[in-house]
Amino acid sequence: MDDVILTVFERPELKDPILIEGLPGIGLVGKLAADHLKDEKKAVKFAEIMSPYLPPQVNIQDDGTIKPVSMDFYYIKGKKDIILLLGDFQGVTPDSQYQLSESILNFVKEMGVKRVYTLGGLGTGSITEEPRVFGAATTKDLVTELEGKGIIFKGGGAIFGASGLLLGLSMRMGLEAICLMGETHGQIIDAKSAEAVLEILANILDIKIDMVELEKKAKQTQEQITQMSKVISTYQKAAERQQEMLDENPFYIR
Amino acid sequence: MDDVILTVFERPELKDPILIEGLPGIGLVGKLAADHLKDEKKAVKFAEIMSPYLPPQVNIQDDGTIKPVSMDFYYIKGKKDIILLLGDFQGVTPDSQYQLSESILNFVKEMGVKRVYTLGGLGTGSITEEPRVFGAATTKDLVTELEGKGIIFKGGGAIFGASGLLLGLSMRMGLEAICLMGETHGQIIDAKSAEAVLEILANILDIKIDMVELEKKAKQTQEQITQMSKVISTYQKAAERQQEMLDENPFYIR
Amino acid sequence: MDDVILTVFERPELKDPILIEGLPGIGLVGKLAADHLKDEKKAVKFAEIMSPYLPPQVNIQDDGTIKPVSMDFYYIKGKKDIILLLGDFQGVTPDSQYQLSESILNFVKEMGVKRVYTLGGLGTGSITEEPRVFGAATTKDLVTELEGKGIIFKGGGAIFGASGLLLGLSMRMGLEAICLMGETHGQIIDAKSAEAVLEILANILDIKIDMVELEKKAKQTQEQITQMSKVISTYQKAAERQQEMLDENPFYIR
Amino acid sequence: MDDVILTVFERPELKDPILIEGLPGIGLVGKLAADHLKDEKKAVKFAEIMSPYLPPQVNIQDDGTIKPVSMDFYYIKGKKDIILLLGDFQGVTPDSQYQLSESILNFVKEMGVKRVYTLGGLGTGSITEEPRVFGAATTKDLVTELEGKGIIFKGGGAIFGASGLLLGLSMRMGLEAICLMGETHGQIIDAKSAEAVLEILANILDIKIDMVELEKKAKQTQEQITQMSKVISTYQKAAERQQEMLDENPFYIR
Repeated sequence: MDDVILTVFERPELKDPILIEGLPGIGLVGKLAADHLKDEKKAVKFAEIMSPYLPPQVNIQDDGTIKPVSMDFYYIKGKKDIILLLGDFQGVTPDSQYQLSESILNFVKEMGVKRVYTLGGLGTGSITEEPRVFGAATTKDLVTELEGKGIIFKGGGAIFGASGLLLGLSMRMGLEAICLMGETHGQIIDAKSAEAVLEILANILDIKIDMVELEKKAKQTQEQITQMSKVISTYQKAAERQQEMLDENPFYIR
Repeated sequence: MDDVILTVFERPELKDPILIEGLPGIGLVGKLAADHLKDEKKAVKFAEIMSPYLPPQVNIQDDGTIKPVSMDFYYIKGKKDIILLLGDFQGVTPDSQYQLSESILNFVKEMGVKRVYTLGGLGTGSITEEPRVFGAATTKDLVTELEGKGIIFKGGGAIFGASGLLLGLSMRMGLEAICLMGETHGQIIDAKSAEAVLEILANILDIKIDMVELEKKAKQTQEQITQMSKVISTYQKAAERQQEMLDENPFYIR
Repeated sequence: MDDVILTVFERPELKDPILIEGLPGIGLVGKLAADHLKDEKKAVKFAEIMSPYLPPQVNIQDDGTIKPVSMDFYYIKGKKDIILLLGDFQGVTPDSQYQLSESILNFVKEMGVKRVYTLGGLGTGSITEEPRVFGAATTKDLVTELEGKGIIFKGGGAIFGASGLLLGLSMRMGLEAICLMGETHGQIIDAKSAEAVLEILANILDIKIDMVELEKKAKQTQEQITQMSKVISTYQKAAERQQEMLDENPFYIR
Repeated sequence: MDDVILTVFERPELKDPILIEGLPGIGLVGKLAADHLKDEKKAVKFAEIMSPYLPPQVNIQDDGTIKPVSMDFYYIKGKKDIILLLGDFQGVTPDSQYQLSESILNFVKEMGVKRVYTLGGLGTGSITEEPRVFGAATTKDLVTELEGKGIIFKGGGAIFGASGLLLGLSMRMGLEAICLMGETHGQIIDAKSAEAVLEILANILDIKIDMVELEKKAKQTQEQITQMSKVISTYQKAAERQQEMLDENPFYIR
């Protein structure tokens, strides 16, 4: 089995597209923002990555059919053509993060992408009414350009996972890349922070994004998590107990 | 050493065979059900997979000989020809789950399999007198077909391990696949849930399965686990202590 | 870097040699027994395996020089020619156990080995004055042959690591293989159990082994461990603390 | 993606260069010493290694640009030409330690290196006013040579990670290699121990190293760690919580 299995459903004609990454991370800020952008702009899925580097599971959809774990590519045509990278998971091992990030960049570079935005959260441990948006970029020129857009650049810290590696590997491949991080508590799903990130992004891209549904979506997510937490915790305990039974019992009869 | 070493002892002539998977999972529901089906129908082992993805151990059999860890293929000829996939373990790493599942499907597809059933448990944390059977499938048509058989389809949740990946990878390979999950507590070995799954399966396949031995077997398993738990816990502690000794003691003399 | 790097220093002429494995395991029984056999019979090292599957460290010898971690092959010429497999570690990941075991068997098979003995301990949690020796083998004929030598065969349980896999893989490669397990508490370094295993082995091989030094060696080892435990625990805490500092501090200045 | 990606910016002409390794380890002794040597001697970076074996993250620099995780090669021309190997991380898995160490040695051997010094700490659990420097080397001749320089050689113990493996692999590649270990508590960042190591090294190499900045740097590092610990712990908790949310919630809506 190949490490990264890319399936392309459609080859859209895009003009100077940018890549926007919104995989899960701190406060789900990046994922919420990018998922919302997809919904608002009716983005079209055109490719996906399956990989043994992703968790070994499938998800059950509302109609009873299953969906394999994947990273999904969507496109939005507009004033500025956009490719979105969405998904529910990142690579499960350190090296898989590198392999997946490189495969993603190879694919979008081939599609004409020259600039990459990665979206994430910056955990502070406190709740802020007006979350700021911090940035990091591959070149000093980019930093200067984006400081004018209300993004705060300050040294120190690290960016983990795809949001970081897509920047690191972009440098090697001659792409420009920026990470936008919304200030967030870190232990809550943060729609407000996602909104702050999206507003900065809308400003940069000169597009409009309706935010009404975003807050609803975050609330929904929060409620679902609360309701389900009992079921899930049972499910998890069951899985753990089951694992224990197998571990304890090399004698299990055949 | 190859990642997946398939040994085929016999190439049975099977007519439109289906694959039924019963590897260990929640409540050992799937394994109990599939092992019981094997015993009742006197299934014949015809192939096995050894793999460095499986645990590095061998099991000692009653006659003092050893048996390497493997995933085993059995066949049952009847109204409907069946291939069973049985074993005591699943792959030990996330990516190995993918690799093993793909190898399994490649092999059975070559043998003519067009439909796959995976059996498992759905942990609820409570004990039910009449466990229901939940399902998930690769296509909406399959969902519709199986809803008529008393299987409950509802969205949400995920299917972990081989029971899930065999569905996910079946989609890519043009196979139909269904997961049947018996409602179960999660922390006990659940013969009742296995029976519920088998009854649904028997109905779908239009075969008869005597359930008397199934309950006995689950009781036996439970007793064996109880009796052995003291020995095993000693064994485990010994292994851990031994590991500690080595860890603590890089100075161990040669 | 190759996964298994075999270096052969000498190609001894051996007549129908057997392989005896004594890598670390429960109670260090197998290692103590095989190391003692090496010392008593003045075994000669003729080959070694280095591997990225072994722990990433080197040991410091009494003269201040270092010794890479390795698995070492020794030979003993006598009534029955013997190859010993010794070392301080086993493979660090599940799959590495398979890869190393297969490489070992390929090498010794090429040297004419047709029968393999693996030595280990069987943890019981209690201290026994007269430890029994349990066995497991690749064929029923071997079981019958060895029952006559005072080895107890009883079903159930598993053999973990190299002592198990060397049996499992021997089956595939057409070699005979036996595991001898000395009854042991599991949480102490057990010279008495090692002696019991060696006595059975000496009887099988029709050789004499002086046991005086064996007990000394185990005592020495025990004393060394006790004396060093304070130093080592400091060392370990230091390493852990250091790791924590790095983990906590992605901000470490360059 | 290749396992080890070496980028060479400049090919300096060096006369019989030695390699000095100062990657993070016990008490950060080796890293502090080597980083200080780099600063004092205005070492020039000429090559770097990126690798999926290193942590999947990028660091944010003071000017807002990012820096991928790397191992960096610097050179110092002088009485004795020196290549420095510096970095913030070691390989994340056992086997990656082997692969990276081998790649490093292949590269510097090609540049003419015949002798390797690795720098580290030896954790004792107590604070010493005058830390001693312990050694280990690849040959008895080296031990004898260095004993005359105030380095203490005593058997026992192990050297973990790159500082150890660079010695172990040097033996195989026909290079001379020495590990210098400064006595240190183990749970503090120890500039004093780093100074002791550097003094021995300066004496061996017959160079002068001003130590004033070294203590400042260690203090700075200590302060930064203290100041940041609150932020970082929040950050870490956020990441963990976020991971928990994903783990708990396979039901997260798309």
